[in-house]
Amino acid sequence: MAKKVSTSVNITPLHDRVVVKADAAEQKTAGGIIIPDTAKEKPQRGTVVAVGGGKKDEPMTVKTGDSVLYGKYAGTEISIEGADYLIMRESDILAIL
Amino acid sequence: MAKKVSTSVNITPLHDRVVVKADAAEQKTAGGIIIPDTAKEKPQRGTVVAVGGGKKDEPMTVKTGDSVLYGKYAGTEISIEGADYLIMRESDILAIL
Amino acid sequence: MAKKVSTSVNITPLHDRVVVKADAAEQKTAGGIIIPDTAKEKPQRGTVVAVGGGKKDEPMTVKTGDSVLYGKYAGTEISIEGADYLIMRESDILAIL
Amino acid sequence: MAKKVSTSVNITPLHDRVVVKADAAEQKTAGGIIIPDTAKEKPQRGTVVAVGGGKKDEPMTVKTGDSVLYGKYAGTEISIEGADYLIMRESDILAIL
Amino acid sequence: MAKKVSTSVNITPLHDRVVVKADAAEQKTAGGIIIPDTAKEKPQRGTVVAVGGGKKDEPMTVKTGDSVLYGKYAGTEISIEGADYLIMRESDILAIL
Amino acid sequence: MAKKVSTSVNITPLHDRVVVKADAAEQKTAGGIIIPDTAKEKPQRGTVVAVGGGKKDEPMTVKTGDSVLYGKYAGTEISIEGADYLIMRESDILAIL
Amino acid sequence: MAKKVSTSVNITPLHDRVVVKADAAEQKTAGGIIIPDTAKEKPQRGTVVAVGGGKKDEPMTVKTGDSVLYGKYAGTEISIEGADYLIMRESDILAIL
Repeated sequence: MAKKVSTSVNITPLHDRVVVKADAAEQKTAGGIIIPDTAKEKPQRGTVVAVGGGKKDEPMTVKTGDSVLYGKYAGTEISIEGADYLIMRESDILAIL
Repeated sequence: MAKKVSTSVNITPLHDRVVVKADAAEQKTAGGIIIPDTAKEKPQRGTVVAVGGGKKDEPMTVKTGDSVLYGKYAGTEISIEGADYLIMRESDILAIL
Repeated sequence: MAKKVSTSVNITPLHDRVVVKADAAEQKTAGGIIIPDTAKEKPQRGTVVAVGGGKKDEPMTVKTGDSVLYGKYAGTEISIEGADYLIMRESDILAIL
Repeated sequence: MAKKVSTSVNITPLHDRVVVKADAAEQKTAGGIIIPDTAKEKPQRGTVVAVGGGKKDEPMTVKTGDSVLYGKYAGTEISIEGADYLIMRESDILAIL
Repeated sequence: MAKKVSTSVNITPLHDRVVVKADAAEQKTAGGIIIPDTAKEKPQRGTVVAVGGGKKDEPMTVKTGDSVLYGKYAGTEISIEGADYLIMRESDILAIL
Repeated sequence: MAKKVSTSVNITPLHDRVVVKADAAEQKTAGGIIIPDTAKEKPQRGTVVAVGGGKKDEPMTVKTGDSVLYGKYAGTEISIEGADYLIMRESDILAIL
Repeated sequence: MAKKVSTSVNITPLHDRVVVKADAAEQKTAGGIIIPDTAKEKPQRGTVVAVGGGKKDEPMTVKTGDSVLYGKYAGTEISIEGADYLIMRESDILAIL
């Protein structure tokens, strides 16, 4: 499920932040039915491309390359060298897939 | 009361989160009376299918396979391989049945 | 004042939660006067039927069988095997009678 | 100033809670002038009739029999054997008289 | 600037609370000009007449007899033996004069 | 940039509070242009004239005589011997100039 | 991407604050297209020109000269010797570029 993201980004998130490259929203269900826009509010998948150094006494759990699930409205959009990423706190990440 | 959930999911919830498969809402009371929709707002039952690694110095109490009771509005819906689950913090779980 | 509650329930409240069986509201005052509904907003009595394992470094104070006083709006209603109970945090309990 | 309250109550407040029997509101000032209702919003006096076991590492300061001053809207009214009391946290008590 | 307050009050504030006797508001400026009411919203001066025992591991800084400055709306009015006082937390006191 | 403030004030701020004498707002820019009122909402400069003893285990960083920058709406105005000062927490101070 | 900022400023931010010189907003995309104003709400880049001493037991991570990314509305504008800067907490900084 986790697609390789070849891009390596030259950015160091501070403390407990991570940079995530969102996967393209899947337009179809497993059975091939096209999902209308209103049905796409569920958490999104992405790939971690950069990880901060963690907070005091709390090392990070996710690592670069992890395919993760995060809330649809988590993080802040940033654009690095023309590509869009999300920068969020590790606590905004729900799970590693 | 706890039904076996054979599905094993390939997901690792972060920190104190758990993934729960909701039981189908019971449509009838013990006496066989059909419950109207407005009466179904009580906590729901489900089965834990994945458990995070816990927070610092706070191991998890629930484990995979536990039948649990949780608030009706707890957690975030996620869909994994076509099936719907809830991902919530352990603190949203009220009790183990 | 504490009535015996013979029911034992098969439920394990998580952490600092307890399950309480509410006593029937007393309809009459000591002098036998019937209390109108608007006068019945005071804390309620109930009997503890299940107790969680406590929080980290904070063992529980109440135990199964204790007759307790709790805020009228404390806890969440749950129904186990057809009977109604309340599940609440120990901090919602005001006193042991 | 503190009147003896002979009633002993059979109740154990939880943690940092205390049970207080409110003194009757004094209708007259020192000079004998009757105070109108709107002037009676100041803190009230009462007598502590039961004291909880304190919170973790924080023993209680007040003890049964203390005459105390507390905010007019502090605590929750409870009625034990026909008499009215207030159950409040020790932090709602302003001073011992 | 600090006037002696001869009254000693028979009251023990709880924890980090202090009892303060407010100085009479100064009606004139240094130059003798009468200050209109709307200009008197600045912090007020008073004299500490009773001091609590402090919170756990935090002894009190002010002591009885200190002339202090406190926010105009700090504390709760109490009346002891016909005289008006304020009971407030030490953190409501801005400075010792 | 920091002007000497010869006034010494007879006041002891409590805990982490400091007393600051505000510099007069500069009416002109470096180039001599007069700044209209609406452009003067930036942080203000002042000189520390008294410093509290700090909070438990947190000594103070600023000291008497420091020229400091603080938020325009920080602190409470106090008047000591006819002069106006501001009393604020050290955390309201942005920087030492 | 990080431009050298030759200006050295004579200011010591308090505790966990940093002073940042904002980079000029880039008016064009990589492909040379001019970005309209409404599209420029993303985090901004700047260069750290002064760093505070950190909070108790929490040394600072960023250092003078770092090119950083921060929320568009982070910090407070200050002007030092005619030039505009932002003073913000380190926690307002998202990443080091």
